[in-house]
Amino acid sequence: MRAEIIAVGTELLLGEIVNTNANFLALSLKDLGIDHHYQTVVGDNAERLSQVILAAISRADLIVLTGGIGPTPDDLTHETLAKTFALELVEFPEVLVSMRNIFESRGKTMSSSNLKQAKLPSGSKLLANPIGTAWGVWLEPELGKIVLTMPGVPTEMKKMWADQVIPKLVEKGISRHKVNSRNYRIFGLPESKIAEMLGHHLDSDQPSVATYAETFGVRIRTASRSEPALSDEILDKFEKVVISPLFADFVYSTDGSALESVVGSMLQRRGESVAVAESCTGGLLSKLFTDVPGSSQWVVGSVTAYSNFVKNQILGVRDDTLSAWGSVSKQVCFEMADGVRRALKSDWSISTTGFAGPAVEGKNEDVGLVYIGILGPDGFVHISEHRFGAWQRRDMIRIQASVSALNLLRLAMGRSPSLPPSLLL
Amino acid sequence: MRAEIIAVGTELLLGEIVNTNANFLALSLKDLGIDHHYQTVVGDNAERLSQVILAAISRADLIVLTGGIGPTPDDLTHETLAKTFALELVEFPEVLVSMRNIFESRGKTMSSSNLKQAKLPSGSKLLANPIGTAWGVWLEPELGKIVLTMPGVPTEMKKMWADQVIPKLVEKGISRHKVNSRNYRIFGLPESKIAEMLGHHLDSDQPSVATYAETFGVRIRTASRSEPALSDEILDKFEKVVISPLFADFVYSTDGSALESVVGSMLQRRGESVAVAESCTGGLLSKLFTDVPGSSQWVVGSVTAYSNFVKNQILGVRDDTLSAWGSVSKQVCFEMADGVRRALKSDWSISTTGFAGPAVEGKNEDVGLVYIGILGPDGFVHISEHRFGAWQRRDMIRIQASVSALNLLRLAMGRSPSLPPSLLL
Repeated sequence: MRAEIIAVGTELLLGEIVNTNANFLALSLKDLGIDHHYQTVVGDNAERLSQVILAAISRADLIVLTGGIGPTPDDLTHETLAKTFALELVEFPEVLVSMRNIFESRGKTMSSSNLKQAKLPSGSKLLANPIGTAWGVWLEPELGKIVLTMPGVPTEMKKMWADQVIPKLVEKGISRHKVNSRNYRIFGLPESKIAEMLGHHLDSDQPSVATYAETFGVRIRTASRSEPALSDEILDKFEKVVISPLFADFVYSTDGSALESVVGSMLQRRGESVAVAESCTGGLLSKLFTDVPGSSQWVVGSVTAYSNFVKNQILGVRDDTLSAWGSVSKQVCFEMADGVRRALKSDWSISTTGFAGPAVEGKNEDVGLVYIGILGPDGFVHISEHRFGAWQRRDMIRIQASVSALNLLRLAMGRSPSLPPSLLL
Repeated sequence: MRAEIIAVGTELLLGEIVNTNANFLALSLKDLGIDHHYQTVVGDNAERLSQVILAAISRADLIVLTGGIGPTPDDLTHETLAKTFALELVEFPEVLVSMRNIFESRGKTMSSSNLKQAKLPSGSKLLANPIGTAWGVWLEPELGKIVLTMPGVPTEMKKMWADQVIPKLVEKGISRHKVNSRNYRIFGLPESKIAEMLGHHLDSDQPSVATYAETFGVRIRTASRSEPALSDEILDKFEKVVISPLFADFVYSTDGSALESVVGSMLQRRGESVAVAESCTGGLLSKLFTDVPGSSQWVVGSVTAYSNFVKNQILGVRDDTLSAWGSVSKQVCFEMADGVRRALKSDWSISTTGFAGPAVEGKNEDVGLVYIGILGPDGFVHISEHRFGAWQRRDMIRIQASVSALNLLRLAMGRSPSLPPSLLL
């Protein structure tokens, strides 16, 4: 079984929207074990759409169309499909009833333009749309060939695909098993290093193993397409034998949680609080912490000290230290963390100071240099130096510094052996 | 002249990345006045890629390919292009030199796998890549047919397209006039209201007028495709007769600048500084200010007061005020702005306090309620109450509150009549 994806809509050709539907379907087809070799975008034009459908059906067995099934005159997908395979358009009363109910529930009356949405190629099995007026069809116009239509609106399309198309594909044996997968989120290792460590496992089939770069680190995804109990066993074994020994503490979450949520949950479990003193990250680290709902239970607050005056007056960084070492130094980093922890009376504190760029003339080599300080209960002190790469943009350096700081706090709380050695002050 | 877009890459078929390149090119082709009817995605497979190229060249005159020109064995676009049109692959020394320079500047040595990137179809005109190793080609394999290759990495592709392809398309008369366009960024009016205000102008052709929802407000784009002097005149007139009278101060930028940059430039021109006291926005407002390069010239710093202790101890909000009115109140909002301005010794200050959600049981109606305070020189005080909608997500409420605060500071500095009345304390 080979599939092909066709997105219909002049708005895609005009660049008004991005074709995220093709991406969603591509990922899902992969999980279902169904290959596809082509994706096409075509406008709302009957002749060109018909040619695209015929080209697809000559190359593939399952044609998945999205878009062009709305109420406006330029929505031509069902009409074109009927014409292409010499089928009549037939009115399906259940579609009419459903559309009327949708309008009623929103306190509106159905417009006559919607009537055409109930006229579908004869022989269609219906793909209901419980949240919109655009119903899709499952059509088998030739022996062994399946043509599906779905709405272009992503939420409606995704719901129809998940609730109605996937079960049918499984029922018909086109996809034998839904994939069972796990995701390991990793911070602190570049993707190339992770790939090297995984080595031949990346070519393995049971489970399949892949790495994905994310804004915050890298995700390893393991997947198995066996029957459920067996695939669980395969994934368990791979986790025990490969993932845990190789990556240990570098894995910060296995349930999709973001790093800030993981750190927040650790603080909450311990009944401890954190305060933040930021220079180069300028509020971003505080923003990440407070992105987490309920974070007021463990974030006391933060100080962004974008001037030496604030470092000195609010955080108590000594003028001597600032003039002797400069504001980007391990000494100032320590005093910032120490000062915010004292002033805000928290259990833990994090500080950042560095050069986020862009370079001021002649100082290019320092862009990306960031010090991160972590102070905690029982006299815990950890200061580290980072170089995030002078060629990177300001926003990327700020993100990397903030996320590194979060991760260092995570490792510090766990007294992890992966915590890099602290700089001596 | 008709174009066609082909994105090459198995990673697109596997759903690992979204085809944003096609969207970028679609928008640009539209601006250049070049129609296109099809977009195709095909994997890194020589046979299928060749078929797609041949199909495209039978339908169009300008074929724009992205992807498959990297250093790995599965990058086959140039090889396939040569084979499809019976051309030799020839080594281009300038590509080798450029690649070596790029590696040197990053302190690395070029790998032998990169050598293939200098081998391009004979007869190619080169599209240089100053920021990567994947050079593209401009090839005219048949009379009146142009085939372009560009990198799949969006930043490299966009730069190549803008700096090299567009000028060539204009020079060759393929695009007669680059569209002359203006963008008016607006904050404080919903898109539906703006559309209503623009009325029949949205159907106009000279200039064409469209609205786009952005994360921060709405953008109105006016565009004219006449010859430069005339189109400037058309856009000037529309600005004077329609945009300025209708939208006045709601327009915060006309040069693409973000709101935080606009506010920063205003502060810098006035030689004034700002300090921030945040509760519900949790560092986001400070982060937005410090996103702007050079912001240390006008941002003194910020305090995120996520606890009453910090509000009281660092910002000097009185315990009486907190207990009498609660932390989300116009009174606390005022004392936060007043406190941070005194403690950080800035000319201006902004404060935010509100409920970003999610709702704690039974308190749903308060989610989205935010107070924003602006204090400035000469006793300027402005406190306003906002309701950002209890149905919205925490992150959206935080963004809207932060951007509203930026905009209020902009209006306050300009003593704008659009500034809503301040709440009496």
